[in-house]
Amino acid sequence: MHRTLPVASSPVRDLLALTSRPEVISFAGGLPAPELFDLDGLRAAYDLALQDRSVLQYAPTEGNPALRSLVSSRLTARGLPTSDVLITTGSQQALTLVATALLSPGAVVAVEEPTYLAALQCFQMTGARIVPVASDASGLDPESLRSVIASERPTLLYLVPTFANPTGRTLSAARRAEIAALAQEHDLWVVEDDPYGELRYRGPAVPSLASMSDRTIYLGSFSKIGAPGMRLGWVKAPADLLRTLVIVKQAADLHTSTVDQAAAALYLANNDLDAHVARLRVEYGARRDAMIAALPSTVPDGTTWTDPDGGMFVWLRLPGSVDTAELLKEALRHDVAFVPGAPFFATTPDHATFRMSFTTNTPAEIAEGMARLAQVLR
Amino acid sequence: MHRTLPVASSPVRDLLALTSRPEVISFAGGLPAPELFDLDGLRAAYDLALQDRSVLQYAPTEGNPALRSLVSSRLTARGLPTSDVLITTGSQQALTLVATALLSPGAVVAVEEPTYLAALQCFQMTGARIVPVASDASGLDPESLRSVIASERPTLLYLVPTFANPTGRTLSAARRAEIAALAQEHDLWVVEDDPYGELRYRGPAVPSLASMSDRTIYLGSFSKIGAPGMRLGWVKAPADLLRTLVIVKQAADLHTSTVDQAAAALYLANNDLDAHVARLRVEYGARRDAMIAALPSTVPDGTTWTDPDGGMFVWLRLPGSVDTAELLKEALRHDVAFVPGAPFFATTPDHATFRMSFTTNTPAEIAEGMARLAQVLR
Repeated sequence: MHRTLPVASSPVRDLLALTSRPEVISFAGGLPAPELFDLDGLRAAYDLALQDRSVLQYAPTEGNPALRSLVSSRLTARGLPTSDVLITTGSQQALTLVATALLSPGAVVAVEEPTYLAALQCFQMTGARIVPVASDASGLDPESLRSVIASERPTLLYLVPTFANPTGRTLSAARRAEIAALAQEHDLWVVEDDPYGELRYRGPAVPSLASMSDRTIYLGSFSKIGAPGMRLGWVKAPADLLRTLVIVKQAADLHTSTVDQAAAALYLANNDLDAHVARLRVEYGARRDAMIAALPSTVPDGTTWTDPDGGMFVWLRLPGSVDTAELLKEALRHDVAFVPGAPFFATTPDHATFRMSFTTNTPAEIAEGMARLAQVLR
Repeated sequence: MHRTLPVASSPVRDLLALTSRPEVISFAGGLPAPELFDLDGLRAAYDLALQDRSVLQYAPTEGNPALRSLVSSRLTARGLPTSDVLITTGSQQALTLVATALLSPGAVVAVEEPTYLAALQCFQMTGARIVPVASDASGLDPESLRSVIASERPTLLYLVPTFANPTGRTLSAARRAEIAALAQEHDLWVVEDDPYGELRYRGPAVPSLASMSDRTIYLGSFSKIGAPGMRLGWVKAPADLLRTLVIVKQAADLHTSTVDQAAAALYLANNDLDAHVARLRVEYGARRDAMIAALPSTVPDGTTWTDPDGGMFVWLRLPGSVDTAELLKEALRHDVAFVPGAPFFATTPDHATFRMSFTTNTPAEIAEGMARLAQVLR
């Protein structure tokens, strides 16, 4: 009847439906905590934006000039000198625009394995072939990347280098420099997807890949530091690629909501986002600590897990040949949920892995959820 | 450096930059009149929506359930029985989703000529081949469509059947029935793009193509009856295609702004949109009449133009072999603007054509703009 798409559905999405019962303590989602949204500040920004009827009109594809300038200044202040960005409808849209602009059917995309599910779907939809690169606790392995470049000639490397989804891992500064040099040497595009970078709970900041190489396309987002419902992201790229992305975006949705963009620009101008992010760091850091502290009494001996310095996720592997998708059904009977790890793998899934998010539950809820989970896993 | 896209830029977009000087009376844009936006009603809807912090959170890809239900009811009341729609980030996004779901590279798309520029760009970006179908004052010619189906086997026919962009023409009811039968017979998808259908200034409504054939994908929009800055559109399609479009949309932007959707749902629930549209009809109808009345003294003898029953556009053709792109430069020197017609043609442009929008200027401004234009054209 119509073209069969390579992606039948999203397991995370199907799963979110199962975890929506109010009695379930869910570690499955990748959602920010709604009680920490600055609702009053954002409502005031919308009200101010809607004093001006031009926010209801069509607007340029590139995005609200004030918002572009505020986002650029913020990136510059964080160590990534930025003169302009394209505003996107969430950073998910930026991924699709980049895929459309750079990938022909049959192009090769190199990814960490495991990696962000919706990025895999987005690349698969363009007909690209996905090739995994080995990684360890310090993130992607440059030697593995070198051999993938030699054998597969990828057009693009996709990475969440800071507090990765799903692993929570951060690529070391030394490896960033090596990867930047490889990108430069081999004309490889690197997509640095950075929705979590500001959510650091300990340790010093690591410089962004984009600050080391102009072959890097940097994706940022308001979703984790502001509010995902506004669907606001941004992309920084070399000027001529940015122009191409504007043309692709024009066909995709003309422009991102004028109202949401104006509200975000006014919010950034009139509020101290750094102070808000500092509060998120304190709250989420305590939640991270609560989950990590509970893990030894939750999981069986022989389980391994990551120990993230920031972001939203812990990544775990159970001992033996268990299937966490089966365990999830049992967990849901105990009113607790996680995400099975298999869908995050581009090629060979490890069914004993799973992802746990610590951001949407308080430390007390985390303690209760982990106790329920212990009944399933131990 | 990167893949060369088939679409270098948008002439309409480049042109809008030229017409933004405040002294220019522009008939170039396809914009609704900002002074007619229901700013107070929409601001109240946003304020109400932002009483609930869940509007700042991620949301299902399908869209806000209340908005989907209100839009479905409205379509049903207008003669198109509808059980569900997918909410999109403007109807431009719906076009891209449909193109991604249905068109493989090399697929054939049949279009009226001239037709909506950004639809052409969207189809070209998927690598589709565009084939024109002949049309006249009653819209697309079914006989021409029949021969295009036989020789080119198009996957999809794209149409703005009611108050078309750029011509303002409406496809007759008899021809709609013929086209619906052809679509059924030949497994042809028909995209019925209907942003203007409610803006009728005279004559009886014509049934939608989608009410005649379940091979029709119906695209609607809040942009012309509400506010385009909110980027809200919707698509009605057969259930299994709608499911595919949801998957494609998930990769495109996860979902449309939760805030804008909630505000629109509350606006529709708490306001009389029919009364607002009735006011738009009165105002825009007077503007249409002012432009049509001024045309005989504005254009040279031998010029032809359409006489639209609704929508936003009049389409004109000057006598002889003039190039309206050249005339536009002269028009801008007289502080008046229109859109040259050539970019609206998929194949062989007619450089003597141009499009005039009557919606963004008052009758007095239209009279003054037409007087300026007469100095250029006569």
